Amino acid sequence: MAEVIPHWLTKQADLHPNGLAIEMDNGEKITFHELKEKSEQLAKKLAGSGIKKNDRIGILATNSITMVAIIHALSYLGAVSVLLNIRLTEREMNFQLNDAGVSLLLTADSLQEQGEKTNAEVVQSFSEIKKLEQKEIELKKEINLADPYTIIYTSGTTGFPKGVVHTYGNHWWSAISSALNLGLKPTDKWLIPLPVFHVSGLSTMIKSVIYGMPVYLMKKFNTETMHQALLFKNITIASVVTMMVSRLVERLPEGESYPAHLRCLLLGGGPAPESLLEKAKEKKVPVFQSYGMTETTSQIVTLRAQDALRKIGSAGKPLMPAQLKINPLSNDDSIGEIQVKGPMVTNGYYNRDKENRELFDQGWLHTGDLGYMDDEGYLYVVDRRSDLIISGGENIYPTEIENVLAEIPEVKEAAVTGKADEKWGEVPVAFVVMNEEVQPEDMMNYLKKHLAKYKLPKEIHFVEELPRNASNKLMKRKLKVK
Amino acid sequence: MAEVIPHWLTKQADLHPNGLAIEMDNGEKITFHELKEKSEQLAKKLAGSGIKKNDRIGILATNSITMVAIIHALSYLGAVSVLLNIRLTEREMNFQLNDAGVSLLLTADSLQEQGEKTNAEVVQSFSEIKKLEQKEIELKKEINLADPYTIIYTSGTTGFPKGVVHTYGNHWWSAISSALNLGLKPTDKWLIPLPVFHVSGLSTMIKSVIYGMPVYLMKKFNTETMHQALLFKNITIASVVTMMVSRLVERLPEGESYPAHLRCLLLGGGPAPESLLEKAKEKKVPVFQSYGMTETTSQIVTLRAQDALRKIGSAGKPLMPAQLKINPLSNDDSIGEIQVKGPMVTNGYYNRDKENRELFDQGWLHTGDLGYMDDEGYLYVVDRRSDLIISGGENIYPTEIENVLAEIPEVKEAAVTGKADEKWGEVPVAFVVMNEEVQPEDMMNYLKKHLAKYKLPKEIHFVEELPRNASNKLMKRKLKVK
Repeated sequence: MAEVIPHWLTKQADLHPNGLAIEMDNGEKITFHELKEKSEQLAKKLAGSGIKKNDRIGILATNSITMVAIIHALSYLGAVSVLLNIRLTEREMNFQLNDAGVSLLLTADSLQEQGEKTNAEVVQSFSEIKKLEQKEIELKKEINLADPYTIIYTSGTTGFPKGVVHTYGNHWWSAISSALNLGLKPTDKWLIPLPVFHVSGLSTMIKSVIYGMPVYLMKKFNTETMHQALLFKNITIASVVTMMVSRLVERLPEGESYPAHLRCLLLGGGPAPESLLEKAKEKKVPVFQSYGMTETTSQIVTLRAQDALRKIGSAGKPLMPAQLKINPLSNDDSIGEIQVKGPMVTNGYYNRDKENRELFDQGWLHTGDLGYMDDEGYLYVVDRRSDLIISGGENIYPTEIENVLAEIPEVKEAAVTGKADEKWGEVPVAFVVMNEEVQPEDMMNYLKKHLAKYKLPKEIHFVEELPRNASNKLMKRKLKVK
Repeated sequence: MAEVIPHWLTKQADLHPNGLAIEMDNGEKITFHELKEKSEQLAKKLAGSGIKKNDRIGILATNSITMVAIIHALSYLGAVSVLLNIRLTEREMNFQLNDAGVSLLLTADSLQEQGEKTNAEVVQSFSEIKKLEQKEIELKKEINLADPYTIIYTSGTTGFPKGVVHTYGNHWWSAISSALNLGLKPTDKWLIPLPVFHVSGLSTMIKSVIYGMPVYLMKKFNTETMHQALLFKNITIASVVTMMVSRLVERLPEGESYPAHLRCLLLGGGPAPESLLEKAKEKKVPVFQSYGMTETTSQIVTLRAQDALRKIGSAGKPLMPAQLKINPLSNDDSIGEIQVKGPMVTNGYYNRDKENRELFDQGWLHTGDLGYMDDEGYLYVVDRRSDLIISGGENIYPTEIENVLAEIPEVKEAAVTGKADEKWGEVPVAFVVMNEEVQPEDMMNYLKKHLAKYKLPKEIHFVEELPRNASNKLMKRKLKVK
């Protein structure tokens, strides 16, 4: 029997009514009581739009207090938030809206135009919602941890994105496992420079209402703003990707350090180069490497501070109460597929029965990533699943780019691979074999129309043929560009 | 679907192998790795005794590392620990052993004789267990939170004790709700001066393996030992009952205080007099009042430090994720029965289907206690359930004593009530109406034979008749002795 708990925002509004819930980098602030009031009002306004329990509602927004309140509002109605990456193209967005059966799309005012270009039947901007009449309905007082709460799309090896369904329980257990690892202090304040439409940002907004902890939410990452916030805003923890660590370490003047209460920069979204971790160590920047994915509702393996020095390069140990095992590639190989299990792991993708059956092996999730454990049980990730490229914290599946390249009539075949990049960690690079010549600008224009900007190949190499092995299988590793 | 997590002790042995798990007041220490090894060895030795999953195994012991390891050992076998109060008489103990269907009783060496007097088919002392051969069986690697783990008996208004079944989930959620309230620091060390056969002691031993936190375990409460430990053993939290707070506040010299890292004396087992709380405040002893019972797997409502001053007398607010409501006695009364709900609340008593149906109202537990909430939602407990007497942290149900008194042929009728006591909080006092005269010593001897010492009436008043109302109902309140 799934556990039933009081609605977490209502509960925090009772426990910490005047406690700060969110502080934006533009100075806006909201307490837990105010956030609850705002979310309840939005829920009652949205109720007029006919939203029913389990309806999937699209959200297209950059980080803001209203965006977070809308996500909570939908929980008061029992509806499911489908969080859209604002950088998607029209085609990419329509795929997700259609796949999740979204008919109502809620957008930040500045993104209303972008929203209206999609196939969503109804598009409402946050300002329009605020103008609606409140419908006096009974809002949910309790949360059943088995119920679905959010959907975030992630691509896969096929190039067709799949919607990862997170239950309330997945979010709850993710928050608890993080607290059991990092501890929980009444003075904690967590900085989020990452989008709330990503699992890293979203999961921290939910930690906020589970812990009763303030979050410092950045509209958008900016080195100087974040640097100043770490210095002066009593931040104790921040979620980061490699690029941000790199910028911050560079920004921090030689011989200076962040305040001692900054106890963790939780590094997700792909491994960081050792040289960067060494630099961070020199400047006493407390980087905690971690491993996780949308399917695990953010980090599931984290390297603790006390191990940071002696285990550089490791993602750490699976959090309490997660489990991890390596499925060796061969009998005499310690490297194998990383499999994980735990109550923070999704039950599966939305409407993908077949993939879901393949995704799990008796409760163990196939991550598709390769890694090994050392003799003390620390995980080392060798290669992200298949040939996933992680660029500035965004997942890019080569197949998705290859599919669009293949739509260009002049392209005979194409392969995309990742290239190490100082700034973004990795960037996609394309290799194409042409049937006939075409202007590179024309190719790029086509790609720009159909691919989010971060997915655009940074280089296009025209080659005679793609490297294949004896059985004609593409040897992507041979395409690696140094 | 109930959640499955890795075995919590195995997990902590992996995460903090060299972390201190238990330190006894006699200086004995054990790390998480060693505690796991010891518990696994005991499990394999016990496996030879034919213990099967879900078997109820009695444990009769005072606090010790081996006692804790035995409780973990039983979890590796999937068996259920029935924790016996060592102060029970033979008759009381036999009732519980029989009721829970216990055939194997494990005892501390010093209590073996006491154990052998019971009806348990097999009695094994801890030393005898250590001498057994290990049976090579596969121990449990995972915990299903829905499975039962421990049974602790609590009396009821009928005078017949009932076994409260705690699932692993009840313990897990109790630990998590406490962490969400008190926070969680890597430097935390929790002192337990209470018996592990009580839910307060037991639940903290389980917090230890869920948090990876050291516990300072006292064999038995002693003012001087505890005072010195609070001063010199880096204790941050301690579980206490009123009597202990009283002794410590008295012991602490005027003008002195405990180290600043001592952040919480968690006060359970009945309300404390305001005068004592004021004294504690003067000496900066951080007392957190709380409300809970065996059925809620320890505290479910706690007054936080920041509210301690302005809400003296209140038990606080229900912990995240617990719920509380008052079922008013009448329409114009704010006082009513306290009802609670949450994943730390037991699913019911062992083998008591009828009582269990009455115990819950749509998931809400009837506590039988009376209280009210102020306009900010803080709970004030007015009267413990029915006429429960809480003496030195032990629950005493008057009916149980009355039943034994009624067995004495010369006693016509008897009523037992609580009397305020400086040292114990409350003590039981008996009022008896006699058929014919009997020597008070003879009466006491009979009571001593059948009642645990702490249940013995401290006074026996011989009266002509018991106060009854018009409908002949006993008016216990009129028997209150100041």
